[in-house]
Amino acid sequence: MGSVALDTVETPFGQVKEALGGSAVYFSAAASVYHPVSLVGVVGDDFPVVHLELLRRRGIDLGGLEVARGRTFRWAGRYDHDLNVAHTLDTQLNVFADFRPQLPAEYQSAEFAFLANIDPELQLDVLRQMQAPKLSVLDSMNYWIENKRQALTKVISRADAVLLNEGEAREYAGTYSLLGAARAILALGPKAVVVKKGEYGAALFTAEECFFVPAYPCEMVKDPTGAGDSFAGGFVGYLAKAGEVTPGNIKRALVHGTVMASFTVEDFSINRLCSVTWPEVEERYQAIKRFTHFDGPF
Amino acid sequence: MGSVALDTVETPFGQVKEALGGSAVYFSAAASVYHPVSLVGVVGDDFPVVHLELLRRRGIDLGGLEVARGRTFRWAGRYDHDLNVAHTLDTQLNVFADFRPQLPAEYQSAEFAFLANIDPELQLDVLRQMQAPKLSVLDSMNYWIENKRQALTKVISRADAVLLNEGEAREYAGTYSLLGAARAILALGPKAVVVKKGEYGAALFTAEECFFVPAYPCEMVKDPTGAGDSFAGGFVGYLAKAGEVTPGNIKRALVHGTVMASFTVEDFSINRLCSVTWPEVEERYQAIKRFTHFDGPF
Repeated sequence: MGSVALDTVETPFGQVKEALGGSAVYFSAAASVYHPVSLVGVVGDDFPVVHLELLRRRGIDLGGLEVARGRTFRWAGRYDHDLNVAHTLDTQLNVFADFRPQLPAEYQSAEFAFLANIDPELQLDVLRQMQAPKLSVLDSMNYWIENKRQALTKVISRADAVLLNEGEAREYAGTYSLLGAARAILALGPKAVVVKKGEYGAALFTAEECFFVPAYPCEMVKDPTGAGDSFAGGFVGYLAKAGEVTPGNIKRALVHGTVMASFTVEDFSINRLCSVTWPEVEERYQAIKRFTHFDGPF
Repeated sequence: MGSVALDTVETPFGQVKEALGGSAVYFSAAASVYHPVSLVGVVGDDFPVVHLELLRRRGIDLGGLEVARGRTFRWAGRYDHDLNVAHTLDTQLNVFADFRPQLPAEYQSAEFAFLANIDPELQLDVLRQMQAPKLSVLDSMNYWIENKRQALTKVISRADAVLLNEGEAREYAGTYSLLGAARAILALGPKAVVVKKGEYGAALFTAEECFFVPAYPCEMVKDPTGAGDSFAGGFVGYLAKAGEVTPGNIKRALVHGTVMASFTVEDFSINRLCSVTWPEVEERYQAIKRFTHFDGPF
């Protein structure tokens, strides 16, 4: 569940106009590499049907995608050479402003749920519509930390795992220490906190352990838009494929998250994700293993 | 070889006045955990003898420490909550301004050499005084990149390994891509480039491979001063102890570097390094292994 958008993006390496984007799209494109995905979102009646076809061909169920009267959510942004920082040029919420997510009956028994960054009250409402997911993963952003802290805290306490950028984790917890921030969030109830660090990879914190994965060192980063949601797609998609949320599966899921993010940033929109092959996924997964493992005498 | 200084440092967690510091001191304190160290540097005639005693008790040979007429190098700095950024308040080079490193005869056959950040012409002069080290490791900083680029390039091309902060690597190579920057530096001659990323750990690049180590997640970071030089101390110290520069040893050395940096930042000056025990080193080394390794089915 999340946004479906038309993105206009400019980076030092090119630009696109009204390209397929949005958190639900990036998540689904990545997760569908691993497992069938059901998307919940809204588009306007101006949404190009070609995009729907692209998603359907990837095995993404669009039964939860509402088509509302009006214009689709649009976002325009620019990245300079520091691709870690997005400069928002324009945001038009359009039909997304009135989005009230309704899960189709057959979605309510889903075992794995990803609630992308939207109003925490709506995220809570979606969680309430679900029966008993094995894993619910929550994303958020600074806007909700600053403007709907109470509702955000409530939905964090109900989610199984929370996914945040490092800046957001620090801001929410009010501490510069990432370890301290993760512990403060874990204390609210979630069993895991995943901190996204952009080009520095990701970190997982649970009550028992922590785990770090570097970003895959891409030859070429063209557009970082959607990296975080693609990370979430690889993370949740892998766990859905594995079927069980075990400590070992969570670590491997974190690696798959960084692998998916690494594909996304190599091209605009979900272009690269659409051409990903399973051998390519395994190649990067094994590369990250080589890039991080050491053994021999202490 | 590097600076010996009296540091006045303020962080959100306390302050010290004229504490023992300097690149050669942090390096030696860390490297001496692994292997005997010979220090080359200069102090003024005002240098407290108690500091010399402390270094000697750690088995650090001070035969290469010149005592010059005048005042010792002093540095004053402040860190705010973002401990990645040092704000220099005052620098008094004093006797360090006229430092012309001379290796005692018995140092010239050393097998492992660390050239801390000083004028690249002096670094080159030290390399020329050495017979045939198995490994020479070079550090530098933005000042030399901007003001003595040609000399810096020359000494880089003569060193076996180069150690830089990520910002410095990017600035030197003129590219935002860390992978691209590492390749540009490798093309000059060094067999390895080690990029220090502060709280994000460190990365190693050689012609054949890359390797990433996260920073050890410290419960408490009091003062990051000297973290980079302590990292170098763990890195070179471990390799000297191992005796041979193999791909496996280099990876483990990178882990020992991050372990030593993690101790340094837990207290001011070299206080924490002085109390480190071998079981504590092994504990953090094994923890980093746990925090990064994953296995099981792809």
